[in-house]
Amino acid sequence: KRVREYGIQIGVLPTGKLNALTDVPGVQVGQVTLNKGQDIRTGVTAILPHAGNLFQAKVPAAVFVGNGFGKLAGMTQVQELGNLESPIILTNTLGVATAMNAVITHTLQLPGNEKVQSVNAVVGETNDGGLNDIRGRHVTEKHVLEAIQKAKSGPVEEGNVGAGTGTVCFGFKGGIGTSSRQLPASLGGYTVGVLVQTNFGGVLQVAGVPVGEELERFSFREQILKKADGSCMIIVATDAPVDARNLERMAKRAMLGLGKTGGIVSNGSGDYVIAFSAHPALRIPYESREKTQTMTLLRNDEMSPLFMATIEATEEAILNSLFKAETTVGKDKNKVEALPLDKTLEILKKHHVIRP
Amino acid sequence: KRVREYGIQIGVLPTGKLNALTDVPGVQVGQVTLNKGQDIRTGVTAILPHAGNLFQAKVPAAVFVGNGFGKLAGMTQVQELGNLESPIILTNTLGVATAMNAVITHTLQLPGNEKVQSVNAVVGETNDGGLNDIRGRHVTEKHVLEAIQKAKSGPVEEGNVGAGTGTVCFGFKGGIGTSSRQLPASLGGYTVGVLVQTNFGGVLQVAGVPVGEELERFSFREQILKKADGSCMIIVATDAPVDARNLERMAKRAMLGLGKTGGIVSNGSGDYVIAFSAHPALRIPYESREKTQTMTLLRNDEMSPLFMATIEATEEAILNSLFKAETTVGKDKNKVEALPLDKTLEILKKHHVIRP
Amino acid sequence: KRVREYGIQIGVLPTGKLNALTDVPGVQVGQVTLNKGQDIRTGVTAILPHAGNLFQAKVPAAVFVGNGFGKLAGMTQVQELGNLESPIILTNTLGVATAMNAVITHTLQLPGNEKVQSVNAVVGETNDGGLNDIRGRHVTEKHVLEAIQKAKSGPVEEGNVGAGTGTVCFGFKGGIGTSSRQLPASLGGYTVGVLVQTNFGGVLQVAGVPVGEELERFSFREQILKKADGSCMIIVATDAPVDARNLERMAKRAMLGLGKTGGIVSNGSGDYVIAFSAHPALRIPYESREKTQTMTLLRNDEMSPLFMATIEATEEAILNSLFKAETTVGKDKNKVEALPLDKTLEILKKHHVIRP
Amino acid sequence: KRVREYGIQIGVLPTGKLNALTDVPGVQVGQVTLNKGQDIRTGVTAILPHAGNLFQAKVPAAVFVGNGFGKLAGMTQVQELGNLESPIILTNTLGVATAMNAVITHTLQLPGNEKVQSVNAVVGETNDGGLNDIRGRHVTEKHVLEAIQKAKSGPVEEGNVGAGTGTVCFGFKGGIGTSSRQLPASLGGYTVGVLVQTNFGGVLQVAGVPVGEELERFSFREQILKKADGSCMIIVATDAPVDARNLERMAKRAMLGLGKTGGIVSNGSGDYVIAFSAHPALRIPYESREKTQTMTLLRNDEMSPLFMATIEATEEAILNSLFKAETTVGKDKNKVEALPLDKTLEILKKHHVIRP
Repeated sequence: KRVREYGIQIGVLPTGKLNALTDVPGVQVGQVTLNKGQDIRTGVTAILPHAGNLFQAKVPAAVFVGNGFGKLAGMTQVQELGNLESPIILTNTLGVATAMNAVITHTLQLPGNEKVQSVNAVVGETNDGGLNDIRGRHVTEKHVLEAIQKAKSGPVEEGNVGAGTGTVCFGFKGGIGTSSRQLPASLGGYTVGVLVQTNFGGVLQVAGVPVGEELERFSFREQILKKADGSCMIIVATDAPVDARNLERMAKRAMLGLGKTGGIVSNGSGDYVIAFSAHPALRIPYESREKTQTMTLLRNDEMSPLFMATIEATEEAILNSLFKAETTVGKDKNKVEALPLDKTLEILKKHHVIRP
Repeated sequence: KRVREYGIQIGVLPTGKLNALTDVPGVQVGQVTLNKGQDIRTGVTAILPHAGNLFQAKVPAAVFVGNGFGKLAGMTQVQELGNLESPIILTNTLGVATAMNAVITHTLQLPGNEKVQSVNAVVGETNDGGLNDIRGRHVTEKHVLEAIQKAKSGPVEEGNVGAGTGTVCFGFKGGIGTSSRQLPASLGGYTVGVLVQTNFGGVLQVAGVPVGEELERFSFREQILKKADGSCMIIVATDAPVDARNLERMAKRAMLGLGKTGGIVSNGSGDYVIAFSAHPALRIPYESREKTQTMTLLRNDEMSPLFMATIEATEEAILNSLFKAETTVGKDKNKVEALPLDKTLEILKKHHVIRP
Repeated sequence: KRVREYGIQIGVLPTGKLNALTDVPGVQVGQVTLNKGQDIRTGVTAILPHAGNLFQAKVPAAVFVGNGFGKLAGMTQVQELGNLESPIILTNTLGVATAMNAVITHTLQLPGNEKVQSVNAVVGETNDGGLNDIRGRHVTEKHVLEAIQKAKSGPVEEGNVGAGTGTVCFGFKGGIGTSSRQLPASLGGYTVGVLVQTNFGGVLQVAGVPVGEELERFSFREQILKKADGSCMIIVATDAPVDARNLERMAKRAMLGLGKTGGIVSNGSGDYVIAFSAHPALRIPYESREKTQTMTLLRNDEMSPLFMATIEATEEAILNSLFKAETTVGKDKNKVEALPLDKTLEILKKHHVIRP
Repeated sequence: KRVREYGIQIGVLPTGKLNALTDVPGVQVGQVTLNKGQDIRTGVTAILPHAGNLFQAKVPAAVFVGNGFGKLAGMTQVQELGNLESPIILTNTLGVATAMNAVITHTLQLPGNEKVQSVNAVVGETNDGGLNDIRGRHVTEKHVLEAIQKAKSGPVEEGNVGAGTGTVCFGFKGGIGTSSRQLPASLGGYTVGVLVQTNFGGVLQVAGVPVGEELERFSFREQILKKADGSCMIIVATDAPVDARNLERMAKRAMLGLGKTGGIVSNGSGDYVIAFSAHPALRIPYESREKTQTMTLLRNDEMSPLFMATIEATEEAILNSLFKAETTVGKDKNKVEALPLDKTLEILKKHHVIRP
């Protein structure tokens, strides 16, 4: 079950209908899970800002680098032009290039793109090499194309799925997680959705409660868990009419949500946030007869509720990834336990976070 | 009393001796409080990386901009050259220029600086205009010079003092706060000290407990507390041998500590982190016969414990600023209540953060 | 006379009517020159994006840091919010804070700003300490306010004037210079205006001709001119409807214009470009009942001609500053010769840049 | 012949022995040219900072983004950690992912890397889709591995070779070019080498002479050459002991060299500079028993001559790419003429740049 189903409330804002990235209208998610033999525990998660031809109808977007020890592809073009022209792919560290090739294939083949000679593939990753034979490079272009094709709106699968199949978070099994917030009408009524691929370290906190500490499992504890390294990819979508500059500001806030779960953004972490606006009126045509484009954009002054929504949804998405992940045995018979929910819920009750 | 004196523990790392910025050897703090008549509630806090001539013996430094809606002076030179050549001054928004002039005066007058023609004054601020007649611009060069002269090692006064005299945080009285962490010898034994000037909004959490929510006092609640704006200046010092690039990474982590107190880094917030290394062997001479400088620097791989220490010390420093601040009446008879400690402690007990 | 009056053509695009920053409709420039006694050779140059209340009607703006060894104030807020809310002031290095105070005074006093408690003063500088008693800090708030009040459209004085009174460029007397470009109607018809305060080193080239080399006067030549340091402030204005992101891209290109004059952006140089759009429909109101703002903006694809215009106008503005500057004797009887125009023109004729 | 062989001198500093990137001791270049049938005009250029295991002995490095409309892979990790751990590969836009996969393969297979699970491949590109069937994606991993294996010190082939096989520059055939500068002993005696892949637009200038204009061929001229787009990859190597921060500053200066050839860094240009130090004592071990590393680094104050060297070598490298490129017929029988050297030399003589 997801965090909220246990009566745990993160933050003060209400969630969207599905409490998922896909609460932002038009956004689609597709996942392919590679769970083969003893050694393959990896996969692909594809996020489509809208169902149309993204190259011909780009969306405003921005990237924030929480910590750049990662291989995120496509970052500089998003930052320079303020837009995204392809699906976002998440996979494992050594699968980034293959995923890029798949995104290029996908884009070149779309009707209307017959003359396209340049595609900015945006591909993020975390390193699942603890459970997955990452050096075997088992993600193929076909897997990535399949994830794109399977993308749909509606509920998003969480835990050991897609790009989260083999990830580890706070020493427990991590994975894919999602959450959303919907602002009250008085604050604009906009939706913010977040999806995460969790693979990082620190001292786990659930709704502020030091669960990692009480479970005696956290980074640098007695030099046993020496490594705090890992990574977190965070995707933030909104239907608010926000341009690239303010999307970058939203992206920056997502890191605070990660911090609230106890993440420390360690040296070896590749922590990136990609934010985009799916607002239909902000689509940027690849070519246009017009030299200008008229856009109605949210004023700076109205951004703070979106910042708060981003922080809350990121925190909850990370926790959902942990709550939904399952104990996994993988490469070299390495075993990573799921977060022990019984004990965790007990701790949360003791701390009065779950009303008993 | 400070947070820790109530039995509240923030994070997992031990504090330094004083639990203050000044636990970093050589670092000094001086404060001047302007608390005059009904309308003047402001002041100056000066931080000296070492007691010597800073212009002649600069320290490695970096700045991270959490949110740039602020007037921090001196940022680009610190970033370009990777060093700091003057005391850091904190004051109110409209006092920045005056403080810069004071820093220039201070620097030009120091023995050895007779031919100096360029000084990079680093001055941060938050806006205390709710309690203070900020438009009256009551901070003078003399106040700033006095704060520099009063700078000393040892315990640091917190709460309604210096640049924190008139600030407001989470709807309660904010101010100056400080904290530190000392790494175990196995992780290098280094100290990280943090000092904050708190003046920002969000949903207060104390040690993870949603105190702001339980007190029914937070940003966007029923549109009453419409404004989440404000600012936070964060100073991070360490005795670890860290260069500007890794100091910038430490500075970036401090924002997670702010996030953990419930800060949302709102649109109107000027949130900046200035980090420096006070390690004596890393001093950068203004002039040198040598074309090169030999430095022994911490490897990237060793940074994570310092990141964790920065996050913890920032969180605790912010909480100390709130716990030590006192109810204040100022400009236009505006009154800002201190955090109600009785109720807060009760809530913390209920949540089992303070062992009953 | 200005460069172009000698038959020297920089680039391929036509200039605006005045070949000045003020060709951009609404932009005003005001200058105060301090030329007193033997030792005072400094001043103030004020640039107003429009004649109205800038705080209430901000303009889209961006800053690019060519080299951050300088004291530019106000940078982070411009970058964060994408706008400028005050006149831009140029002066000497140790006069920045005083100029900021003057801008605050100016802004607080404007009708309509009675409740304003925060002003982001944008002040740039170069170091005129070779000719000017810079440590004497002779620029006062009154001088700055006077420059703002004197600001007007129409031709801009160049050479030894305002903030360029005591500056040195390529070993010759530098100063204030300006130029503009007007795009052909087919490329949008927009105007780009540039104003510079020149105080930097390198190997002077005029219209590509290595004048510095032929005059045997350049940085690092025989270790005589050891210092290439100095600075250049560059202001770029346009009437094109360009947002902050694309203004930053324009700002970045201005550095290429500096490079084409032979500048090397040395270690000690504080080289900053501030770009803004004076397009009347892009004004950003301080307060608004509307949560959104509708803007018609140039598409990324249309930016290249504006980039070219920025480069050309910057190059010509720098050359104008040199051609219009006059030999100056200042502090300690230091003498800096103007660019020897006779020899320079001879060289340019030899190189067929001026048609004989 | 190369530019200098015609008696054309760029800048004032002397070149290294080969006037090539490979003048920096240890640096190697390998190129594979794909020139097949009518439609394939592309290739690969590999740059190795040293001949050893780069993953185990990383080099200090930095990236500067001149304009981010490009697909450069690996940028954020270089910036975050300040180092480079693999060969740099240049190829065409749609070949980046394939090249990354090859770099990963190369790195995983190296003796000593048996347990490596993460590789940051740095791959740059320009778009050769005018002459090359870029959508056919003809660059294979094998080609990339071959380029790495062929890498050697000594002279570097220029013009229509490797990643420059199908590129176009200023409307003429572009390609690979290289140049170097060696500082006089009094300025440290260091070498700076530059290699470029030229594929961009503007108004060509050769040694300052407006050759593009006199040949009546430049961007935006009569709307015929509408497109100024394209890209330039610039690699800067030095043996100076410079850390990542100062390497980034060197990288930034390379753009001025591009500007001096008439480049305008158009909207559609992906212009990136990658700079690294090949100084043997600055190698960064992948793993180390030591928590610290001692390095002797150049002081900021000594950087200016290296900046000048970078600018000069970049300008000359670009010109060499044009002088050495040959007229090419490719995809769809598109023909791109080489720079007409006869006319160019005539113009240069007229302008007295080549002494007659």
